[in-house]
Amino acid sequence: MDNDALRTMSWRERIYVIIFFTNTPAGKLFDTTLLFFIFASLVVVMLDSVAIYNDQYGGVLDGLEWLFTGVFLIEYLVRIYCHPEPRKYVVSFYGAIDVLSVVPAFIALLYPDAEYLLVVRAIRMLRVFRVLKLTQYLSQANFLLVALRGSKQKIVVFLLSVTTLVLIYGTLMYVIEGPSNGFTSIPMSIYWAVVTITTVGFGDIVPHTPLGKAVATLVMITGYSIIAVPTGIFTAELATAMRADSLQHRCPSCEKLSHEPNASFCSRCGTQLFKRKALHDEDAQIAHDPQTD
Amino acid sequence: MDNDALRTMSWRERIYVIIFFTNTPAGKLFDTTLLFFIFASLVVVMLDSVAIYNDQYGGVLDGLEWLFTGVFLIEYLVRIYCHPEPRKYVVSFYGAIDVLSVVPAFIALLYPDAEYLLVVRAIRMLRVFRVLKLTQYLSQANFLLVALRGSKQKIVVFLLSVTTLVLIYGTLMYVIEGPSNGFTSIPMSIYWAVVTITTVGFGDIVPHTPLGKAVATLVMITGYSIIAVPTGIFTAELATAMRADSLQHRCPSCEKLSHEPNASFCSRCGTQLFKRKALHDEDAQIAHDPQTD
Amino acid sequence: MDNDALRTMSWRERIYVIIFFTNTPAGKLFDTTLLFFIFASLVVVMLDSVAIYNDQYGGVLDGLEWLFTGVFLIEYLVRIYCHPEPRKYVVSFYGAIDVLSVVPAFIALLYPDAEYLLVVRAIRMLRVFRVLKLTQYLSQANFLLVALRGSKQKIVVFLLSVTTLVLIYGTLMYVIEGPSNGFTSIPMSIYWAVVTITTVGFGDIVPHTPLGKAVATLVMITGYSIIAVPTGIFTAELATAMRADSLQHRCPSCEKLSHEPNASFCSRCGTQLFKRKALHDEDAQIAHDPQTD
Amino acid sequence: MDNDALRTMSWRERIYVIIFFTNTPAGKLFDTTLLFFIFASLVVVMLDSVAIYNDQYGGVLDGLEWLFTGVFLIEYLVRIYCHPEPRKYVVSFYGAIDVLSVVPAFIALLYPDAEYLLVVRAIRMLRVFRVLKLTQYLSQANFLLVALRGSKQKIVVFLLSVTTLVLIYGTLMYVIEGPSNGFTSIPMSIYWAVVTITTVGFGDIVPHTPLGKAVATLVMITGYSIIAVPTGIFTAELATAMRADSLQHRCPSCEKLSHEPNASFCSRCGTQLFKRKALHDEDAQIAHDPQTD
Repeated sequence: MDNDALRTMSWRERIYVIIFFTNTPAGKLFDTTLLFFIFASLVVVMLDSVAIYNDQYGGVLDGLEWLFTGVFLIEYLVRIYCHPEPRKYVVSFYGAIDVLSVVPAFIALLYPDAEYLLVVRAIRMLRVFRVLKLTQYLSQANFLLVALRGSKQKIVVFLLSVTTLVLIYGTLMYVIEGPSNGFTSIPMSIYWAVVTITTVGFGDIVPHTPLGKAVATLVMITGYSIIAVPTGIFTAELATAMRADSLQHRCPSCEKLSHEPNASFCSRCGTQLFKRKALHDEDAQIAHDPQTD
Repeated sequence: MDNDALRTMSWRERIYVIIFFTNTPAGKLFDTTLLFFIFASLVVVMLDSVAIYNDQYGGVLDGLEWLFTGVFLIEYLVRIYCHPEPRKYVVSFYGAIDVLSVVPAFIALLYPDAEYLLVVRAIRMLRVFRVLKLTQYLSQANFLLVALRGSKQKIVVFLLSVTTLVLIYGTLMYVIEGPSNGFTSIPMSIYWAVVTITTVGFGDIVPHTPLGKAVATLVMITGYSIIAVPTGIFTAELATAMRADSLQHRCPSCEKLSHEPNASFCSRCGTQLFKRKALHDEDAQIAHDPQTD
Repeated sequence: MDNDALRTMSWRERIYVIIFFTNTPAGKLFDTTLLFFIFASLVVVMLDSVAIYNDQYGGVLDGLEWLFTGVFLIEYLVRIYCHPEPRKYVVSFYGAIDVLSVVPAFIALLYPDAEYLLVVRAIRMLRVFRVLKLTQYLSQANFLLVALRGSKQKIVVFLLSVTTLVLIYGTLMYVIEGPSNGFTSIPMSIYWAVVTITTVGFGDIVPHTPLGKAVATLVMITGYSIIAVPTGIFTAELATAMRADSLQHRCPSCEKLSHEPNASFCSRCGTQLFKRKALHDEDAQIAHDPQTD
Repeated sequence: MDNDALRTMSWRERIYVIIFFTNTPAGKLFDTTLLFFIFASLVVVMLDSVAIYNDQYGGVLDGLEWLFTGVFLIEYLVRIYCHPEPRKYVVSFYGAIDVLSVVPAFIALLYPDAEYLLVVRAIRMLRVFRVLKLTQYLSQANFLLVALRGSKQKIVVFLLSVTTLVLIYGTLMYVIEGPSNGFTSIPMSIYWAVVTITTVGFGDIVPHTPLGKAVATLVMITGYSIIAVPTGIFTAELATAMRADSLQHRCPSCEKLSHEPNASFCSRCGTQLFKRKALHDEDAQIAHDPQTD
């Protein structure tokens, strides 16, 4: 869509196309500017939390923060104004994120800590995919989502098994090591079991008794081995999603679109997918012949 | 199964159907309530181990614990009473877990630490799959089990190789670093080697000599690389299990065993996989009905 | 092979069959006993390194160690005596491990630390596969070896790239953090980079400057992402090795044994692998019927 | 190419062939010697950073460093001299690395710390692939690159999602734990979140409040689970790349693209893949000869 197409629209329509889509030069510029503002506001929130910057530039940072909040507030109101169905936008996921990017600044007037909730603006950063070649990234993200959705139930089974393991290992370590060795309670021991089974290993709590170390060894080897499970699940699902994508050849009879990579016949209606016809037009050969390159 | 079907049974049969199955509204309610009790009892055991809660609410927590133990005891007795073959239930895996959820409370009267054995109740939490769409999760869990069973021997080969590595690395570090650097004995050094090779890295024991650090580097890179092995094994087996699942139906013509899940025709030779005969013996459908089990 | 077959042999042959093979009852007993001795000797070496056990039972442990060394020495000499080609055995991998299981005990008379070299006995533990169903495990181990051999070159490329990364990251951190923050030299910084990139994270050396933390973040994300590389390499190779194994169907024309899983025609000579004949001899179906087994 | 072929060239051509290629005995010797010098110079830079070696052998190490720098400078000048298109070499990736291996030594005369930039020489170590069987390793490295390129977009999607997660988790922990528990600022908390989500777990900053530990548990399980994503992406892509590689030759009949590496006939339709015609144009063989490049 180019600028000419925009000119035939009403102002409200034009703004709608510019700020909700990226297929106009103005829309691209808008999204890029917005991304810059989001990024800058995140940097300001972060710097504001660092003691030395807060002391020295506290006023400037606060000013910038209110500036960004103002910009996002205006943006939000404009979005409501120009959207054909404002209600739909307001209750949508993006609408919720957009309002959450503004509200905490006002809550912070009462409860200063609420200021940091502004970090939800980070989620808006994901708009970056709108500026990059959109569809390409979305189709790739889609693969990941298909694989995640396909593995959801297996992941639930896995996570529940891990939870049970962690509860049992944690309690065991509490009984073995006891409060004198840092395992002050069962929840604390479960925290240790999670730290250990995920191979994070902070080292703030460590076993001291020989038996505790033996159990810890078991926990570590468990964690080291079962990481194979989520990885295996996701990899297998992703490979399936990608393979399912591979042989895109519309069946001449029933129009089924995707087939097993090696299929010779449509698996729905039995029609032969590839008639030997190519044998008679040998010029097809030459296309990939290395000598002619 | 609805409540009408229940009314035609004896009381004992009704209770059996309600507490051992989930396909009645009453059964679902029973299982949900039971899950809540199990979860609540786990929370109580955990809070009881936290010093401040124990000091303040020790009496209440103890009371609740005895309440839950009572509930589980009654449940256990009812299960024995209503089961058609009580002995079979008592010696089954679930029967064992159910009794282990009650007994530690009584042992704790003599040895207070036994109280924490009540955490085996966590295993009962896995009943949650009964309340969720049962069969769907079980079939997914089944994939994981098939993959684990398929990889069992490869995993044994892997674990034994890792054990050997860990023994040798551990002893080597003991000789190099020695007791003065925290490697106080070979078992301690082996514990360090496990901590390091599994990439947990607590940091409670670390090498101090240059040579020790060089060997540690080797151990870490070993651990980082060989994690590929269990992951690869499990992924390959899972992919195989999922592929094999697609449709296990031997093609009558070419004997190709697995097909796309919805295939009507063999994708290798085009032979029709299911002659329409199944239409005429509709009773084949009923075979997997849970009530008949 | 049963005991009758043994009786027809000379004593030397009999001993050879018993101690080098596991297909006789006596051979199985020999290997199981040997495994027990190896395991026990490892335990003794380990306990001997623990201060409290060494103080209390030092004499007993030393005695046991010499006992085991004696047993292994006799075993080694008997192996040489009964082997048809002793020289071949002595220079073989197993021969070398067997002699290394004995020699350190004598060296330890001069240099006490050499005692711990006895841990090479751990390698002998791998004989356990001889006692378990041998061939089954070996074929599984073989898959792993095929996959490792297939991925060797990719792994070398990967490890050299990681080495380069680690050298550069390590030097960078040395320049940024400097000796005052624990990064006392480039080798020390490289050690830190390895600890970090492999996600071990001991925490004995950590960055203190903001810039150092930023670089550390990069190192960690690098390590977290590139673990995908060895895992991917090994998984892909293992899947290939396992898939290559799958369609074992001797080509009726050229006798090629393994084919692509979905192949309809031999990929070497073009002969059709599965003639539709099976349609006409339906008894072929019955071969795999579970009832007839 | 043997030494006879070299004798027919001019001196400049001879040097060019020797130092830019490895297919002459002299070229192999040159590359091996160069690798040794690069390795030695890296060791010298490293030792120079260790306090005790610097104190004792500072002069010798400095001397060696200047010697290596001299050698590399001469090598660089000779490369420019003998290359047919010197400009092309100078601006190439290798030309840039070669000059960066020399320049820091001179900058170090003004800013001593610049000396450590000499570690970029590590990149030159990758020349080792030239000495090993070159093409074999390059083709394997190529697989990895194809897989990385194929997964680029998925990896970007993944990394941006992780960045968002880390920002949000980090800020959350800052609000929960606060400066008194070591989470002194949002950037510091984000650093902690990266340390935790990548399962590195230094342990220099750890949560102290119960709520903080609960969130940390979430972060760890997130990190432990999502490592499956890059691994899955890369594995699936690599498997695809390796499968695609088997034999990229479009079947003239059914257009099946990939075949078993040694296939003569399409495994889908039995069509002969290579008509014997290639036998008659033997010059096709020569195409990939390195000398003609």
